[in-house]
Amino acid sequence: MTKRNAFYAQSGGVTAVINASACGLIETARKHKNKIGKVYAGRNGIIGALTEDLIDTSKETARSIAALRHTPSGAFGSCRYKLKGLEEDKAQYERLIEVFKAHDIGYFFYNGGGDSQDTANKVSQIGAKLGYPITCVGIPKTVDNDLPITDNCPGFGSVAKYVAVSIREAAFDVASMAKTSTKIFVMEVMGRHAGWIAAAGGLAAEKKGDAPHIILFPEIVFDKAAFLKRVDQCVKKYGYCAIVVSEGIKNPEGQFLAEAGGRDSFGHAQLGGVAPVVAQMIKDEHGYKYHWAVADYLQRAARHIASKTDVEQAYALGKAAVQLALKGQNAVMPTIVRKSNKPYKWTTGVAKLSAVANVEKMMPKNYITKDGFGITERCRTYLQPLIKGEDYPPYKNGLPQYVVLKNVAVPKKLKKKFTI
Amino acid sequence: MTKRNAFYAQSGGVTAVINASACGLIETARKHKNKIGKVYAGRNGIIGALTEDLIDTSKETARSIAALRHTPSGAFGSCRYKLKGLEEDKAQYERLIEVFKAHDIGYFFYNGGGDSQDTANKVSQIGAKLGYPITCVGIPKTVDNDLPITDNCPGFGSVAKYVAVSIREAAFDVASMAKTSTKIFVMEVMGRHAGWIAAAGGLAAEKKGDAPHIILFPEIVFDKAAFLKRVDQCVKKYGYCAIVVSEGIKNPEGQFLAEAGGRDSFGHAQLGGVAPVVAQMIKDEHGYKYHWAVADYLQRAARHIASKTDVEQAYALGKAAVQLALKGQNAVMPTIVRKSNKPYKWTTGVAKLSAVANVEKMMPKNYITKDGFGITERCRTYLQPLIKGEDYPPYKNGLPQYVVLKNVAVPKKLKKKFTI
Repeated sequence: MTKRNAFYAQSGGVTAVINASACGLIETARKHKNKIGKVYAGRNGIIGALTEDLIDTSKETARSIAALRHTPSGAFGSCRYKLKGLEEDKAQYERLIEVFKAHDIGYFFYNGGGDSQDTANKVSQIGAKLGYPITCVGIPKTVDNDLPITDNCPGFGSVAKYVAVSIREAAFDVASMAKTSTKIFVMEVMGRHAGWIAAAGGLAAEKKGDAPHIILFPEIVFDKAAFLKRVDQCVKKYGYCAIVVSEGIKNPEGQFLAEAGGRDSFGHAQLGGVAPVVAQMIKDEHGYKYHWAVADYLQRAARHIASKTDVEQAYALGKAAVQLALKGQNAVMPTIVRKSNKPYKWTTGVAKLSAVANVEKMMPKNYITKDGFGITERCRTYLQPLIKGEDYPPYKNGLPQYVVLKNVAVPKKLKKKFTI
Repeated sequence: MTKRNAFYAQSGGVTAVINASACGLIETARKHKNKIGKVYAGRNGIIGALTEDLIDTSKETARSIAALRHTPSGAFGSCRYKLKGLEEDKAQYERLIEVFKAHDIGYFFYNGGGDSQDTANKVSQIGAKLGYPITCVGIPKTVDNDLPITDNCPGFGSVAKYVAVSIREAAFDVASMAKTSTKIFVMEVMGRHAGWIAAAGGLAAEKKGDAPHIILFPEIVFDKAAFLKRVDQCVKKYGYCAIVVSEGIKNPEGQFLAEAGGRDSFGHAQLGGVAPVVAQMIKDEHGYKYHWAVADYLQRAARHIASKTDVEQAYALGKAAVQLALKGQNAVMPTIVRKSNKPYKWTTGVAKLSAVANVEKMMPKNYITKDGFGITERCRTYLQPLIKGEDYPPYKNGLPQYVVLKNVAVPKKLKKKFTI
């Protein structure tokens, strides 16, 4: 086996643990210097490959690379940039191969969601077609937990933990205040299409009466009357009501609730998220004082409260990607395989990219209670291990110490520029 | 000294560490059983005293009381209920004394902000007047950090840490995405009158270019043009711009920006907070893609990322309150006294309630940079020690284990009911 370089890129929305995958990948590649020369990272994801803007990760110390394990976000930059189909935009794929050829890249590692797995699959095909064989391995990443085959997606477990911890804490607060002040708390979480993240909030409720009392899933058409009735029941029974709402809930007309709120005096669409809409609805009907929060990026960047399981799996998948590539496996993605629930045991497996690409894993129907406002025991059994364990970053002066890499550019070899 | 019972109540908005003060107070009282009989807590704050709804904390195990140290919120319930002036509503004060007399309460501990210190002071006066001497000690608590004399207020340090950690993490996220996607992140924090919490976000910026790039303080009239110009400069220089905005910022007309956004199609006032207003303003002017977050209760309930300094000080003040009372000091409040900055050293001191009551400590002018968008070194020197150290709660199944007390009611002795 000849020694060749590797290319690694981060794609799409970043997470608290995507850098842990990068860490696993780079540390493992460094252990196989006889087979893998340098690991070049794409600056700002695949755009870095197209524009020949590569980062030489060999310029980073072992310590910096190790620190990626506890650093949120995408250390090399990510992008929202989907390559079109092979037929539609062959030039882009040809350009990729051209860049890879110029830098003797024999391994293509792409760390992202469904679209990215599709891209990795296509790069593998075009490479073969153009007579430049390249080993393509996808690495799963998405807070949305919507990739198929793999038991779960790195990034999700940490968001899940953040959401469960946060709603528990906020609910304790509201419970203290409910006698004379706030009785309603609404927390908006990510998940435009699937309710995985909202469901994770349900982990905070371990016994009857625990918060959250209501979860609003994008899978369930929002029933205003039933919802308002349930809110009132909760307040009468528990003194307050804590709600987790997915940003993606829709009304019976199929509109996102977040967008159905109307326009302000300047004619702008409602600026707020769905949390204030839901909170105001309760106020209008029942008059209860409310508070609401929109966690937004805080939830997916919250490395300080990352799930240890999630960090370990993210690292393991980065490592497994290199191991698969070294075994000559092409057009594949390492996966998480659940071996048992109690005790929780897992290992890594492998899936074909063709089976992963562009397939969205939705929440099973039997994960949501019949009334549509909670999670079932089956859902809890699935989710629970994913938030297990803490993996605190190091602190200095009260703040987590996250690494910023040097990100030294690899000298360009091609004369032709490529415009995105 | 005769053995008498103590009354303790939590007041106003709760914090991540007010229960640590309760813990310090109860644990210390339990060590002086020869002087302090039982500690009765007011259910839902002072309302519990007025309605003779007392909680017998002696029914709680030592383990449960110890767990208060790591449990956010108000374990006995709090309330937003301000007693009026002595002349205005003497009946309420007389009722308090009546309840205290019925339960042989010789110590009144009131854990809250400026209003609460005022109430504690008045109870002390009326007690003497009505021939029922009672030792009144206030315990400082407020995330707003606006009490005078004490170096800082328990509750603030933990919010400060949450805000600094969160903006650092979210900014790492935005920096990764900025090439093709989100360039602006706006995080709204509490602080309607004083910018202490917003200022704390500034701790995340340790060197030039670090986020947050802009802080909007309630002390500074919002200058839209200067702000938008600065945002653009940041994006051009750093690729993105991370902003911390206080909920209390006002436009030159003196309106809260959060309320100036207009009305929706149903005629409701703008539901959102100030973060979406500011974010949309940037979008309208520069076209940059934005994300925004409103942390709301999450920030003050976030015991999982509490400041160790804050927890220790909250506990110490609860303990000091009992010690002061046992020394016969009346109408006082224990304080935090800063001995040195580097290394950070502190001790507890004492202030007269009359000097604390209804005095608001604003941020010194020289804590804000001349351009109005950042904090000075002097501010950093003050804030930095307050977020120092981590004090993680215990976890089980991936979730922090917070205690819910039994809160057993003390049998009522008075026949007369009191209506709030």
